[in-house]
Amino acid sequence: MTRFSATYWIETPDSLEKAAQTLAAEQSSGTFVAVPGETDELKQRHAARVEKIEPLDVITTPSIPAPTTATLFRQARVTVSWPLENIGTNLPALVSTVQGNLYEIRAFTGLRLLSLDLPAEFTNHFRGPKFGIEGTRERAGVNGRPLIGTIIKPSVGLTPTQTAKMVEVLADAGIDFIKDDELMANPPHSPFEQRVKSIMAVLNRHADKTGKRVLYAFNLTAELDAMKQNCETILAHGGTCAMVSINAVGLAATKAICDRGGLIVHGHRNGWGMLTRAPALGMEFAAYQALWRLAGIDQLHVNGIANKFWESDDSVVASIAACRAPMHNLAPLLPVVSSGQTGLQAPETFRRTQTTDLLYLAGGGIAAHPSGARAGVIALRQAWEAAVNGVPLDEFARTHIELREQIEKFGKPEKYA
Amino acid sequence: MTRFSATYWIETPDSLEKAAQTLAAEQSSGTFVAVPGETDELKQRHAARVEKIEPLDVITTPSIPAPTTATLFRQARVTVSWPLENIGTNLPALVSTVQGNLYEIRAFTGLRLLSLDLPAEFTNHFRGPKFGIEGTRERAGVNGRPLIGTIIKPSVGLTPTQTAKMVEVLADAGIDFIKDDELMANPPHSPFEQRVKSIMAVLNRHADKTGKRVLYAFNLTAELDAMKQNCETILAHGGTCAMVSINAVGLAATKAICDRGGLIVHGHRNGWGMLTRAPALGMEFAAYQALWRLAGIDQLHVNGIANKFWESDDSVVASIAACRAPMHNLAPLLPVVSSGQTGLQAPETFRRTQTTDLLYLAGGGIAAHPSGARAGVIALRQAWEAAVNGVPLDEFARTHIELREQIEKFGKPEKYA
Repeated sequence: MTRFSATYWIETPDSLEKAAQTLAAEQSSGTFVAVPGETDELKQRHAARVEKIEPLDVITTPSIPAPTTATLFRQARVTVSWPLENIGTNLPALVSTVQGNLYEIRAFTGLRLLSLDLPAEFTNHFRGPKFGIEGTRERAGVNGRPLIGTIIKPSVGLTPTQTAKMVEVLADAGIDFIKDDELMANPPHSPFEQRVKSIMAVLNRHADKTGKRVLYAFNLTAELDAMKQNCETILAHGGTCAMVSINAVGLAATKAICDRGGLIVHGHRNGWGMLTRAPALGMEFAAYQALWRLAGIDQLHVNGIANKFWESDDSVVASIAACRAPMHNLAPLLPVVSSGQTGLQAPETFRRTQTTDLLYLAGGGIAAHPSGARAGVIALRQAWEAAVNGVPLDEFARTHIELREQIEKFGKPEKYA
Repeated sequence: MTRFSATYWIETPDSLEKAAQTLAAEQSSGTFVAVPGETDELKQRHAARVEKIEPLDVITTPSIPAPTTATLFRQARVTVSWPLENIGTNLPALVSTVQGNLYEIRAFTGLRLLSLDLPAEFTNHFRGPKFGIEGTRERAGVNGRPLIGTIIKPSVGLTPTQTAKMVEVLADAGIDFIKDDELMANPPHSPFEQRVKSIMAVLNRHADKTGKRVLYAFNLTAELDAMKQNCETILAHGGTCAMVSINAVGLAATKAICDRGGLIVHGHRNGWGMLTRAPALGMEFAAYQALWRLAGIDQLHVNGIANKFWESDDSVVASIAACRAPMHNLAPLLPVVSSGQTGLQAPETFRRTQTTDLLYLAGGGIAAHPSGARAGVIALRQAWEAAVNGVPLDEFARTHIELREQIEKFGKPEKYA
């Protein structure tokens, strides 16, 4: 029978074998006491199975407080498998099975979902990213380099007219992609429809004039009916891209938006830190991106090298790899590099990932360029040109004034390597 | 201008004042560098405001690893407010604003959302729990005591026919409420429609015969269209209640199911441990239940006294209070007491909460009763009768054999107090 599996980091005062069996039992046929219907036949058919236990450290203080008098806590990497039959092709049921009550079990003083291994029999029921890297490139007309993008700043407060003016400057500067901030949804001072109308008028005019279609990810995050209406609004005005705060909206409604099919879906992962930042709890990005790829988003945030947040470069690099890793029939996600980016991180980003299949976003990094947003966009493209061609930024900056001014504002490139 | 606020527990290597300002800036008009459009007028209108800083401990090791060389970490309780105008009446936008990127900020080595204070101008846009405590009681015909419920066990593996047989036994035993396990959604061996049909045939017959309508919460957790279809299936067969794994499904799709309006929505919080169990990260139940109450669920899990999971009794008691706390126009949630419950926890549950407005669930606690499920249900009702009347369980058990057998199986009542 076809099975799927999940790999966890665990910490437990019990023996590793016992803890792994507890995990498997809680998430399949067992409960805290034997019950009559739990026959051998049923167990054989539906029970989760411990596939592998790889012991790691043993420590003396639990990573997460637990009601226990134990003094030793064993850490391990554990793989558990389930019959696919337990969940059918139900995506939220997958989540309830591989996560669900596991985080509540007192036998664990730490539990972290590291990765999922899903069979093609499961993934084949999902379309996954309809646009992904290829579709985004095609719609933006950008090849051979990262898409350069920006976030409208200030995050909140601008009217549609003010935003459209800013969009005009950015489009003229040669930007590929613009997005609303995740704090900007549908407030009274910038009603969604009005914002779409004002911005698309600018971008449609720009496309007519130059042939270049700038992508704008409108933050349609809302309740379901409003999001559906927002999709129609974007399409009606010639827009191509929608942004969803995926954690706030949730898996089922985000999938419904992706299933609508007409728009590139930009997955904003705000709230992700809550799920991953405690080292002994939550989940790794590898598992997280798999769930959202199944839901069908096209682009997913990964922070960036030398970001303004807590995340290490190693973690960012691993996330970019996860977005691009094969997953049967599902296309890769376009990694969205963002958070305190200025272009000065371009060489290190390229050195570590060896790819230009990125959406490279700078908010303040563009808007706060000393010579304005136009110079900010140009500086980013220059930084990436230098990075891909292996030319040191300082050297490239000698003949490229926008890059030079960016360096003067944000500091030496070495600081980002 | 009307404002809403959130209260956090924070830990930071910075001064408390600076950290609180970072929080406020990141979640409103600011970014990591000053940008041109961030005018004084815009800031005045849209900026988040630090309302209160209450210093707590100072420690020398960060609760969550962070890229810092600091040696002192200050903890505090901080309240921040925003103009309601920033989010309009958009529920996911509220989440992105009060949580969002906050958990990523490196200035925090711990951040936990404790509570939300939302004005009536916001809550008035939401219906909240349509059935809640009153509506559930009315549909079940149960007053003056907790609803006694159970979970079909084993969690997975039973066919619809097997499940219906079990339901018949439980209904005959006088149970008020039955639910699918969260691991049982729509697998090939128990297709949703078939399960509903088989079970409702039993429960409708039971209602015709006895006048008592047993509530069954069918786990309709799935993708959106399937969930909508599942609602219709339940209604078509005379069902009254649906269960949603709220974290797996997400806020927007769960709200869409609640908005459908015909069914009592049983909110299963599996996955909640991931959001709350690390003491320095995530959120408290008080804030969590507020979001789901806004979405419109009617019942929400709170674990139970002496539960099989990690949670302390104090935390469970606080959660029950949070479900029942006033929230402007929104009705209270019916707290679902569950996890290793056997009825022997009834006296302590009543002593600490002084309420019978509970849905008291026992899975193994009923199914594993030595004289069968029927005796299990009776024992639970006996335990609650004793608890509410202040009669010690041991004393009550002298004249009540089912309770006596339950005590013999699960141990002395003292162990649950």
